[in-house]
Amino acid sequence: MAAERKPMDRRKQVLEAAARSFETFGYKATTMDQVAKLAGVGKGTIYTFFAHKEQLFEEIMSGMIRELRELADRTLRPELPFADNLMEVLHKLLDYREQHALAVKLAQEVRDIGTPMAREGLEKVERAVVTYISRHVNEASEKGEIKPCDPELTAFVMLKTYLALTAESHHLHMPLTKEEVLDYFRTYWMEGLAAR
Amino acid sequence: MAAERKPMDRRKQVLEAAARSFETFGYKATTMDQVAKLAGVGKGTIYTFFAHKEQLFEEIMSGMIRELRELADRTLRPELPFADNLMEVLHKLLDYREQHALAVKLAQEVRDIGTPMAREGLEKVERAVVTYISRHVNEASEKGEIKPCDPELTAFVMLKTYLALTAESHHLHMPLTKEEVLDYFRTYWMEGLAAR
Repeated sequence: MAAERKPMDRRKQVLEAAARSFETFGYKATTMDQVAKLAGVGKGTIYTFFAHKEQLFEEIMSGMIRELRELADRTLRPELPFADNLMEVLHKLLDYREQHALAVKLAQEVRDIGTPMAREGLEKVERAVVTYISRHVNEASEKGEIKPCDPELTAFVMLKTYLALTAESHHLHMPLTKEEVLDYFRTYWMEGLAAR
Repeated sequence: MAAERKPMDRRKQVLEAAARSFETFGYKATTMDQVAKLAGVGKGTIYTFFAHKEQLFEEIMSGMIRELRELADRTLRPELPFADNLMEVLHKLLDYREQHALAVKLAQEVRDIGTPMAREGLEKVERAVVTYISRHVNEASEKGEIKPCDPELTAFVMLKTYLALTAESHHLHMPLTKEEVLDYFRTYWMEGLAAR
């Protein structure tokens, strides 16, 4: 019974319900009432943990950033070349994405109705990802593995390529398979398009 | 005096005023009254040419697509390699962009308040550009100048790279110079990032 659960369990339960609601209905259409119902707790219980919807949302976005960073950290092997690590992290990321429709839903919401909180949330994730990649681009560039380049800009364009291949090109054709995304990313980014 | 101008002149005058208004205030905040004032004509005059703001806007977006296509057609030289033509068209496009703040304003409006018409207008331009580039990517691929690839997807990711380098990365650093945009585009797209 809910009353017997430990506070940490209930907090997690609320977070999971909120994530599910944001994912299904978007940021704007989600209410604290809805989250309470989905979590199977009273509305009062939610307010013991989170003062308002914004705080719930920020917690979930921070969690997403943390999970992404941990995923990448677990995957990276410093002894391998930059290109191999990049492809391996992408690989893992594509698995992660399949389970996490929240970012996709938020992007759609930003696109359709421009919800400011959804946009800020996504931009925060975007900045964290760019910062993370740029650190590794910088290292690879210093080691001479890749050409000298502005690490942040390169990281940013890499992210845009990734989004173009995965989330944004569905109006052009069927979603690409994971292997196709990896192939295109390698061609575009590592080998260059020029035939040799 | 306005009354002495030929209809075609006045139509053009209205279009130019509308473009200026969309560019300055965005799609949503532009009214037919405002356009009339900027054009120095009566509101009745506008309605002889355009039934409503949507129609004015569509005419301007079609004009933008036409101008872009003509610019590229004038620049392309079939006897040159794909990569050279690509860089040359980009070069011209960067000059064009400096004069045309409308697309930038619309993108900002879509980002900030998600105005549907602004979004549809931009997407129309985007689709026209992707179709145009993909035709040339396809040709280059058939000639063996570049690797086999999905032409539409490649064109789409090229456009995204261009937008990332020009319009979307200002939060990372100072706007890039034209030469920097061209250099990055060449490195990312033709040579690949891998050091050799």
